[in-house]
Formats: sequence, C-alpha cells, structure tokens
Amino acid sequence: MSKILQPVKTLTGIKPTGVPHLGNYVGAIRPAIEESRREDIKSYYFLADYHAIISTWDPAQVHESTRNIAAVWLALGLDTDRATFYRQSDIPEIPELTWILNCMSAKGLMNRAHAYKASVDKNIAEGNDPDLGVTMGLYSYPVLMAADILMFNANRVPVGKDQVQHIEMARDIGGRFNHVYKGEYFTLPEAIVGENTAVLSGLDGRKMSKSYGNVIPLFCPEKQFRKHIMKIVTNSLEPGEPKDADTCTLFQIFSAFAKDQSEIDAKRKQYEEGAGWGALKQELFEYLNEELKEARGEYDRLIADPAFIEAELKKGADKARAEASPFLKTIREAVGLRPLA
Amino acid sequence: MSKILQPVKTLTGIKPTGVPHLGNYVGAIRPAIEESRREDIKSYYFLADYHAIISTWDPAQVHESTRNIAAVWLALGLDTDRATFYRQSDIPEIPELTWILNCMSAKGLMNRAHAYKASVDKNIAEGNDPDLGVTMGLYSYPVLMAADILMFNANRVPVGKDQVQHIEMARDIGGRFNHVYKGEYFTLPEAIVGENTAVLSGLDGRKMSKSYGNVIPLFCPEKQFRKHIMKIVTNSLEPGEPKDADTCTLFQIFSAFAKDQSEIDAKRKQYEEGAGWGALKQELFEYLNEELKEARGEYDRLIADPAFIEAELKKGADKARAEASPFLKTIREAVGLRPLA
Repeated sequence: MSKILQPVKTLTGIKPTGVPHLGNYVGAIRPAIEESRREDIKSYYFLADYHAIISTWDPAQVHESTRNIAAVWLALGLDTDRATFYRQSDIPEIPELTWILNCMSAKGLMNRAHAYKASVDKNIAEGNDPDLGVTMGLYSYPVLMAADILMFNANRVPVGKDQVQHIEMARDIGGRFNHVYKGEYFTLPEAIVGENTAVLSGLDGRKMSKSYGNVIPLFCPEKQFRKHIMKIVTNSLEPGEPKDADTCTLFQIFSAFAKDQSEIDAKRKQYEEGAGWGALKQELFEYLNEELKEARGEYDRLIADPAFIEAELKKGADKARAEASPFLKTIREAVGLRPLA
Repeated sequence: MSKILQPVKTLTGIKPTGVPHLGNYVGAIRPAIEESRREDIKSYYFLADYHAIISTWDPAQVHESTRNIAAVWLALGLDTDRATFYRQSDIPEIPELTWILNCMSAKGLMNRAHAYKASVDKNIAEGNDPDLGVTMGLYSYPVLMAADILMFNANRVPVGKDQVQHIEMARDIGGRFNHVYKGEYFTLPEAIVGENTAVLSGLDGRKMSKSYGNVIPLFCPEKQFRKHIMKIVTNSLEPGEPKDADTCTLFQIFSAFAKDQSEIDAKRKQYEEGAGWGALKQELFEYLNEELKEARGEYDRLIADPAFIEAELKKGADKARAEASPFLKTIREAVGLRPLA
C-alpha cells in the first residue's frame, strides 16, 4: 500500500565525457528532459564527475566535459526549476555516504561487477596479473553509485541493460543497511530498463556508437552537420525507383524526430514514389536542422557564458544538499556517528 | 635541503574501542601526550570513528567508545591548544579525499594488506569463499588511512610494526598522485616505529593485551585498581629472601612509571634486600594510584560532562578543517573538479 502512495523519484547520472551524438539524444537525453517537465515525478539529474575521474586523469578534459555536458542539457531545455540538476562533486554528502556504505558492502558483491570482471578476464587472457591496471576507483564504483541513488531515495532509476546489475547492488547494500540498523532508512531502487528505447543507426547503418566511429554529433556547425547527414550510407537505387523505407537509415532517423505519425506516413510515401537519395538527405538535414538549431544556438551561447552554467549547477546543488544534508545526519545517527551532547 | 627545513608534523589515529589499559598508556598514550606539548612539532590526534564503523555495527558502542576515549586523552592532559585533536567524522574532507585517492590506488596494493590477507587465509583454511565476511570497508581501509595522513601532509606517523605497511601504501598512493598530476601535492609520510617503546607485562607476565585477558585498566575505581595489582603473578619466595627484579612484572611496571633512575635503583635494592611480595604490591599500587588518581578524577568528571568533550572536539574540528578545506580545494583543482567560472 505504502508503495503505491510513494511519490515516483527518478535519478539519472550523466557521465561527462565528449559531446553527445544524435543517438544519445534520441535514446537517453530527450526522454529524460521530457521527464524533467512532468508534474507527477520528482527527478534528479547529476553530472557524475566523481565517476569521470576514475578513468579521466586529464584535469582539463574533466573540466571541459563537465561544462559541455551541462550546456547540452540546459540548451535542450532541462527544467531546472522542477527537477534537481547538480554536479556530483558539489555534494560532499555523497563521498561520506559512500564510506558509510562501504562498511555495509560485501567485497564479494564487487567481484561480480561486469566492468571489473571484464578487466580481469582481459588481464588473464593476456597472461597478466588479474588486477593489472585496476584502481580502487574502478573496483568500488558500484558503492559510489549506490550512494548516488540511496542519498535521494530514488525509487526508479532509468538505465541501460548493462547497468541493471548496479541497481541490484544498490538494493543489496541499502537492504543490508536497513537490516543491520533495524529501520527503513533507504528506499530500495528499481531499475527501469527502456525496452522500447529508440536505438538510432549511424552513418554506416550499424547502431550509432562512438566505438564504431559512425556518429552524427548533436551540436556542430550547420555546414558540418549537413556533411555528416550526406555521408549516411544508402543503397544504389536511382531517383524514380521505389525504395524500402524500413531498411533505410535516413528513414529511421527521420522517424525518431518526426512530430507525428502523419509525417512518418508522408515520408514513407516519398520512398514508395521513388524519391532520390540526394533529395531525401537534404530534406532530412533541413528537418533535423530546424528541430536542433535553436538548441544549438543556445548551446553556443551557454558555452560562452560559463558563469550562467555554474549558477544553474549551484542552484541545483543547494536543492540537492537541502535534502542530502539532513538525511545524512539521520544515517550518521543510525550508525553511531553522533554528537556527544 | 627542503627536507630539513620541513616542519615535523606527526599524526596519530586513535581507534575508539574499549577502555585503555596500563600497557596502552605507557606504550602509546603517554608518549603521544608528551609529544602534544612539544613546541617543535605540529601534532594531530584524531578519533578514528570512520574506522570504528568498519567492525562495530552497534551504534551505542561507537558513540560511547568515542566519548570514553576522548575523555581518556583529555583527562591525561593532551594539549588541545597546541595540538589538533579532532573526531575523524567531523571532517567531511576526509571521505572526499578518500574517493579521489581511490582513483589513484591500485587494487593490487590492497590485496597485499595484512588484515585483508589474514581474513582470506582464514576463509580458505575453513573451506569458505576467500572473501566471506569481508566488507569494502575492511578492504579499502588503507585508502581511508592514506587520506587521514595525506590530508594534513603529516610527514611522521608513529605506528606499531604491524602498521608500517599502511604507511608504505599511503606513500605509494600519494606518490602516484604527485606523479600523475605533476606536482608536489602530497608530502610522503614516514613511519616512525617505536623501537624502544615500553611494552608492559600483564597480570600473568605475558605482554599486557586485551586478547590475553591479563590487563590492568588505566581508569577504574581505586579499590578495583588495587585488586588488579594484587593479582599480578609473582614467584613463591618468602619475605626476607632476595628477589630478582629483572624477571619481575611488578618491577617492570614500576620502572615504566618511575620518575627517575634513582627511584628505580632504590626499588631494585628493596628486591635484593628481600622485600615481601605483599609489601611490594601495596607499594606499587600506591605509587601508580598517586600518579593516576588526578587523571582518573578528571576522567570521571569529563564523562559526566559530555558537552565539554564535544566542545573540545569541535574546537579541534575547526582547526583541522581550516587546513583541510583549502587543501582539498587544491587537490580538487588538480584533478579537474573546478568551478566553471
């Protein structure tokens, strides 16, 4: 019963690395930003810079990526009044909770984490020490992630399939704390896996992914953006020949951006009627450009005004700490870290 | 050259568990308190309650032990104006630095830690999973300890032989940070192993240790204190028979407390002249009682006045944070956790 009455609280961690591409936008950013505007959900978004320093040891890159990714989300219209949008490293309560949760986390749990196991397998295959190159940051990252989630008692965490395990770990750690300290301190989170999350194809028709080098950047100068679209691989059918929309990357991308079904139907008709690839690409460019150019302009404006971004992040940090600080006090009290008088 | 000019900074972590015994006092507490009064040393003492919650999951016990141990050190005259005496969990910069150092700590380093290896060996010997019962708190405790030390750039850390390894780890982690981030951010600490540290014998003549159940508590009601001394095992020589001072626990304890060599020589003479055990015990009781009763009274007074202890700890926390906060800012800056404007 109490479960039904509990407000929905979602939490989304954003790793500040590189500039996002169209696939990130359609699959993750756009739905998250829509969510930030919903009245029935309390949502949290954070720039995971404590996570970033695990793998990025270049301070300038950490700094610039944080700025760029914050600018992307703000430019796309994240509602920072309704949602709580903060930089992880502005919340000192997070590393403190991480230590407290360390004391409740079985080491055996970490041994089973996919990212760690992948490193170990690679090392063994290459005849190296299993832990070669593995830092305590990489190894204990699931505890930090548990702290991220449990700190705000988020009950729904939208994740990709590869991240489900981390949510299970957060449940395990939070549940153990509740058991040992005899109270319902932490809400146990549920992973929300986007089954029908749009997966966009890239330039070569495979899934758009940085590791394939086939991405179309979300924000880049208009001329460059057009060039990317023109490079999308199609087949060699001539103008006038009917074309199959369902196997076409252009059509798939268009569908992910179309405002409604009638636009998609109209586009499909063009394919059946033998529209030429050049024209279809130019139309796709114009359509996407129309949808993105305002945000792109806003992005450029924000990059030139880091003080504004900083102020937005500070606003979010204040909101986040107003919750985190008293809650951490309760947790400290529970484990015995209390004032003497 | 710069090494010689560097001021000596020592740091001592005090794990809040149980009431200390005479052996703790002579071997560790008394020399540390003397050090706190030295003008040529900058010294730090902290109640390691983040460490305590690794193994103590009873909040009342964590809380009471913290109070009791703080009272012991204050009652014995720790100079809190000269030294910095604080409670670890009052310094949120510590867990934050711990996370940052996690990213610089090789997991392989932790695998070699004695405490962890002992747990693994025990599990394997009993046919269990090697990591059974091992928490991430136990496993990553050397990183927390590195943060404790590196936070204040302590260059000399007095430790027992079993702790030398942890200081080496702190050197390794701090050195790696300096290397990766190209600067002399952290002073690398040196372990100061008390070679001639007084080791006191207990009731049964073996080393005084809680695990042997042969301890004499430092502070307990006078009558009880006398009873403990009377229980010290001696041989069966009668009054009048000459006795060997050098193999006698009573003599060893007396020597550890004697004000000067002439007192020790006089006591040795009593042994040679055949003083009786009863008389020697009564004299030892009176001598120790005289030395400890004022501090014992102060201890009782402090236990009844937790607000005073709390105020002392707050004073220490303010001093500690006045150093830790700007230094952590420098470290954050180094890794790229910087304001955007």
